Amino acid sequence: MTPLVKEILGRLTLAEKIGQLNQNLPGWDALHVHDGELVVTDALKREVEQFGGIGSLYGLQRADPWSGRHWGNGIPPERSAEATAVVQDYVVRNSSSGLPTLFVEEAPHGLQGLGGHVLPVNLAVGAAWDDDLVAELAAHVAVELRVRGIHVALLSGLDVLRDPRWGRAEECFSEDPFLAARLVRATVSAMQGTSGTIDGSHVAVVVKHLAAQGAGIGGRNGSGAPLGPRELHEIHLPAARAAAEAGVAGFMAAYNDVDGVACSANRDLLTGTLREDWGWDGIVMADCTALDRLLDAAPDHASAGALALRAGVDMSFWDRAYVVLGEAVERGLVDVADVDRACARVLGLKERLGLLGDLAPLGTPDPDRAQALARRLARESVVLLQNSGALPLQPGSRLAVVGPNSDDLLSQLGDYTAPRPTPDPGSSTVRSALESAGFPVRHAAGSRLRERLDGGLDAVREAVEGSDVAVVVLGSSSRRLYDSEFAENGAVKGADLGMTNGEGVDLSRVGIDPVQLEVASAAREAGKPVVGVVVGGRPHVVTEFARLCDALVFSAFPGPTGGDAIAAVVSGDESPSGRLPVTLPGGEGVFPVAHDERRETSRGYADASYADNVLLGTGLSYTTFSTEIVNVSGSEVHVQVRNTGEHASRVVVPLYGRRHVLGIRPRVRQVLDYTAMHLDPGETRQVVLTLGPFESGQVWVSGDLHPPADAVGIGVDV
Amino acid sequence: MTPLVKEILGRLTLAEKIGQLNQNLPGWDALHVHDGELVVTDALKREVEQFGGIGSLYGLQRADPWSGRHWGNGIPPERSAEATAVVQDYVVRNSSSGLPTLFVEEAPHGLQGLGGHVLPVNLAVGAAWDDDLVAELAAHVAVELRVRGIHVALLSGLDVLRDPRWGRAEECFSEDPFLAARLVRATVSAMQGTSGTIDGSHVAVVVKHLAAQGAGIGGRNGSGAPLGPRELHEIHLPAARAAAEAGVAGFMAAYNDVDGVACSANRDLLTGTLREDWGWDGIVMADCTALDRLLDAAPDHASAGALALRAGVDMSFWDRAYVVLGEAVERGLVDVADVDRACARVLGLKERLGLLGDLAPLGTPDPDRAQALARRLARESVVLLQNSGALPLQPGSRLAVVGPNSDDLLSQLGDYTAPRPTPDPGSSTVRSALESAGFPVRHAAGSRLRERLDGGLDAVREAVEGSDVAVVVLGSSSRRLYDSEFAENGAVKGADLGMTNGEGVDLSRVGIDPVQLEVASAAREAGKPVVGVVVGGRPHVVTEFARLCDALVFSAFPGPTGGDAIAAVVSGDESPSGRLPVTLPGGEGVFPVAHDERRETSRGYADASYADNVLLGTGLSYTTFSTEIVNVSGSEVHVQVRNTGEHASRVVVPLYGRRHVLGIRPRVRQVLDYTAMHLDPGETRQVVLTLGPFESGQVWVSGDLHPPADAVGIGVDV
Repeated sequence: MTPLVKEILGRLTLAEKIGQLNQNLPGWDALHVHDGELVVTDALKREVEQFGGIGSLYGLQRADPWSGRHWGNGIPPERSAEATAVVQDYVVRNSSSGLPTLFVEEAPHGLQGLGGHVLPVNLAVGAAWDDDLVAELAAHVAVELRVRGIHVALLSGLDVLRDPRWGRAEECFSEDPFLAARLVRATVSAMQGTSGTIDGSHVAVVVKHLAAQGAGIGGRNGSGAPLGPRELHEIHLPAARAAAEAGVAGFMAAYNDVDGVACSANRDLLTGTLREDWGWDGIVMADCTALDRLLDAAPDHASAGALALRAGVDMSFWDRAYVVLGEAVERGLVDVADVDRACARVLGLKERLGLLGDLAPLGTPDPDRAQALARRLARESVVLLQNSGALPLQPGSRLAVVGPNSDDLLSQLGDYTAPRPTPDPGSSTVRSALESAGFPVRHAAGSRLRERLDGGLDAVREAVEGSDVAVVVLGSSSRRLYDSEFAENGAVKGADLGMTNGEGVDLSRVGIDPVQLEVASAAREAGKPVVGVVVGGRPHVVTEFARLCDALVFSAFPGPTGGDAIAAVVSGDESPSGRLPVTLPGGEGVFPVAHDERRETSRGYADASYADNVLLGTGLSYTTFSTEIVNVSGSEVHVQVRNTGEHASRVVVPLYGRRHVLGIRPRVRQVLDYTAMHLDPGETRQVVLTLGPFESGQVWVSGDLHPPADAVGIGVDV
Repeated sequence: MTPLVKEILGRLTLAEKIGQLNQNLPGWDALHVHDGELVVTDALKREVEQFGGIGSLYGLQRADPWSGRHWGNGIPPERSAEATAVVQDYVVRNSSSGLPTLFVEEAPHGLQGLGGHVLPVNLAVGAAWDDDLVAELAAHVAVELRVRGIHVALLSGLDVLRDPRWGRAEECFSEDPFLAARLVRATVSAMQGTSGTIDGSHVAVVVKHLAAQGAGIGGRNGSGAPLGPRELHEIHLPAARAAAEAGVAGFMAAYNDVDGVACSANRDLLTGTLREDWGWDGIVMADCTALDRLLDAAPDHASAGALALRAGVDMSFWDRAYVVLGEAVERGLVDVADVDRACARVLGLKERLGLLGDLAPLGTPDPDRAQALARRLARESVVLLQNSGALPLQPGSRLAVVGPNSDDLLSQLGDYTAPRPTPDPGSSTVRSALESAGFPVRHAAGSRLRERLDGGLDAVREAVEGSDVAVVVLGSSSRRLYDSEFAENGAVKGADLGMTNGEGVDLSRVGIDPVQLEVASAAREAGKPVVGVVVGGRPHVVTEFARLCDALVFSAFPGPTGGDAIAAVVSGDESPSGRLPVTLPGGEGVFPVAHDERRETSRGYADASYADNVLLGTGLSYTTFSTEIVNVSGSEVHVQVRNTGEHASRVVVPLYGRRHVLGIRPRVRQVLDYTAMHLDPGETRQVVLTLGPFESGQVWVSGDLHPPADAVGIGVDV
């Protein structure tokens, strides 16, 4: 505790301290636009009055169907700084504590506010395997938020995807803990800066979710994860540990339980692991309404609040459980010292952000550079899964660009996205981008995502008949509609047929919808080459679609410039370099399929083939590469990579390995390290990768060096 | 350690001690029938020579496709006692130790030897909820084994089914730990007797598998179970604990790992939990070749053996790892004391069985009574899932009995079954039993399990046209063929289309095969009432089949008298009283579905309905019952049950509840207790059930008393 925090804590009343722990008002209810004026609401006034101040305000600038805010009634980008200033001014002037509030916003792939720069979703970021680029973009997002007056960004990244049925798959970087950890570390460091102080060019990050939400039973959102400590620490905590080491400001406790104990009531996790074991010191924030969900583990709100506070949750998120913490103190369920501890952490974050003294000068965003970087990232995230020679397209080919995701910008964006501006320069769909690239294009949607379109297949056939190549763009969508129904935490309820992904849309079937496969079949009929593209938000089963295609591309929601990215790859403007960050199951019902499950003696399912699974790391190029392990010295692996083909290309070089530890059943393989480089034809480069955990004495390494599927020892695989 | 064991141990050489830990020869390779003579083989001679004796011989009497033994070349029942005597005589006379061997055989649902009495599989036993009847039958099995000279029965029962994809689902009693524990306790106590000594009417039981094999990832056989200690202890260990409390002679360590540590290398489990925590004292046996599978957790066989021995495995099962234990001692990987400890346990079991002194007189089996009991159990295991009035059948109705399982005895038996005798009196299929019951029957198989039959559907239509009611019997089969290919541990490899269940046949799809549904559709076409019957070995999805039927019956492999059991129910000779011991998933891909998962806020899958799941406990009757909780006093719940309908019937009365424990996310509901009774129309009976774990101080109980699906508090449900 710093002297300043100690001093402030000493003068606050219990109610004021409790106020600092409360994040209790939907931000979009704090301020309204009336006749062009930004006016604080009675709801905000009541909130400030009740606690003599507020700890944090979530979602002031959020705009999406759930908040009901859009370009017609939300806070426009050019007034966002003014909006936070108006609210802050009110809070500081009218709080007995005199303390400013934190402004917290969602930024899982760019700010979810009007005009916020939208990036590819994490699943696409994972496919690029490019920490440096991610860091540059994250730094841009941070400064964009900070100039709007936002202090805290909620960032997805800790969830490690273990079940493709989960609707939030798109928010995961990978199924592999090492890849996820590297990308979390890069993002957090870039957004916060690497010094203890968070200056005016950076923003505090609360990274989510802690822990194991990606392993919920049945892939159901927030369901229990009955995991043991080894699985938890090997798979689900490395990304959190990377964030802690990067000095992340906060963690969000996940909805799910781990082996029966809800994360927000989990002292072992929030205090034992985070603080006592890792020495991390920051705030733990609840997930939205998660503390009130503790009512099945506690007999009343005050008891639920006590459970969370004692476990180590410092800030609520719309929960009555923390509003009534005073009652918990009175009843002896918590001590004032528990409140003080949490309050000191919240004050500590405000101090770290400079809110308790003079503000540092703000940074300056560079939107043009950000757009160029996002465009680059989207291109790097496109994965070429198969190619019998149909790609790259011949210049001037007449194209039939068909399928429900061939010309639908919203389906490229992912969940947690604000409405797009009109006009929307720089955005592109596959159709528009191929047209811009000069290809003659005939277009037909063919179907919706889960519904037939009248005459849709005939239109597809007609388009293909008159073309040289069919480009069939299928997949899923996390679009949200303003007339959708939402749960109290914003997850969509009663998903309509156009919503096949995102929070609240868990699916029992993860294949490409049969209605869409009809489009592919119709395109196939004419005997023209078929280029398949999946634009989707989860590890879809692509087995059947692949059989209908001569080439197949997978693009996790690539963002507004996604059309350009896919067009660049299929046209040959860019040699593809993305690699799957997850394994695509070969069929329905075969999950889980992660490449790093422990070894099994089972021969798999009698009615399905493991060979149909498309393994993490899969990704083709327009050129060829050779790799050679030059030598292994200590934990260093010297690898020589050579472009042996005809095209210049970026190449990702992952190092895989298998740890054999006495008494432990090994995982089939794990990602140990990776790097990426650009190589011209004939160019050779030597890089050093590291074995990491292979160094320990109990570990032995043996066998072959090229282990794409069933690794023994170590190997690179390009 | 008893004085006798101590004395023997004192005079054995290290090699002889290691010999006692080895169960290393396939029993069917120990003795051959030559010209009517029973002759010990060279393989047995070498084995005895190598170790100066052998600890145990597995499978001398096993007969099935894997062992290759059948009525033509196996040990006939009338010579089985002679066979064990011949081998034992050889072992004792030619061992330097002079110690007798144990004879171990499979008896998961009756002895897997020629002429062994075959019971319904465990999944059917679970559906009957009848501990007393199970105990009576188990006692018969024990004496049947003992008079053949068998000392140890391998008994399934510990596996708690958490994934319907697992091929060994049929070997599980339930998905509910309480139900499984009750049935294990009843079985073990009956087979071993309740005194420390196991007399000549009883047999030692090694119960399997320890632990959590029913929770392997993806339902794949022997895959890892990355579970936490709470899940392990609440779901997977209660049945083991019940066995330990019943004084079970042994546990078999499972193939799978628990959170990374293979069960056979798991000291926490085999020594910590079993011995130190529970105070149990018996032998731990490896599963078949499981110790050699430790080679991915240990660099060589001796190290693997050391790992297992130190963890607490006392006896191997065809593993080189224990053959080379001498090398492990030499290399200092284990101490002689480790060998002594395991050896003392093996000797202790031999002493407990009376093998080290004078044998107790043998009991006398009563095959007729056993057959009557098995017939009763099969009837009690039939579950009526839906009935719009089509059942019971009108006497004299002309029946079309169709479907691949309507007249196929092998499909009723389950895995681990010896070939049937010819003739096979007392056995029945649905077809033969309905004919015997006097119904005019037309029959058509319609299809195979996963293949169409030429003209099959036409034959079905023709049969139904000429009948009043269609009885459509679909499902699955664990049949094994003598030309099948087997893994080294006997699990079937390369399952053919007729094998859809059993060890080695894990499936990604658990619905009724589409080819079979065509049979139901064909039967439906004529507009006659359709009675559906599922004869299967796992929790099948029955949603589509149910829509085609007016009544639906579920019968887990009911054994040789299964036809009688199903016919008795559909004819009305017996009011159905079985209840599902597992939850049937409502669709593909929605698993897991156990009724006692922890509460979730998720609304389930966007593309599937929870309402289609058929919950554990489901089971209709031909009469109606009312229940009333008269009062709750301490842990006692006094329940009044009344037959309010027109038919006499057995009724199972389960007591469900939900524990609310501070800080723990509760399970939706659990089975707390159950009983069963027979009630005539109008008859009332009062019973006392107990709350069990609800007594602890941290637990609160609240809310409604009739909670079939989403229980709050406690409730009975009939």
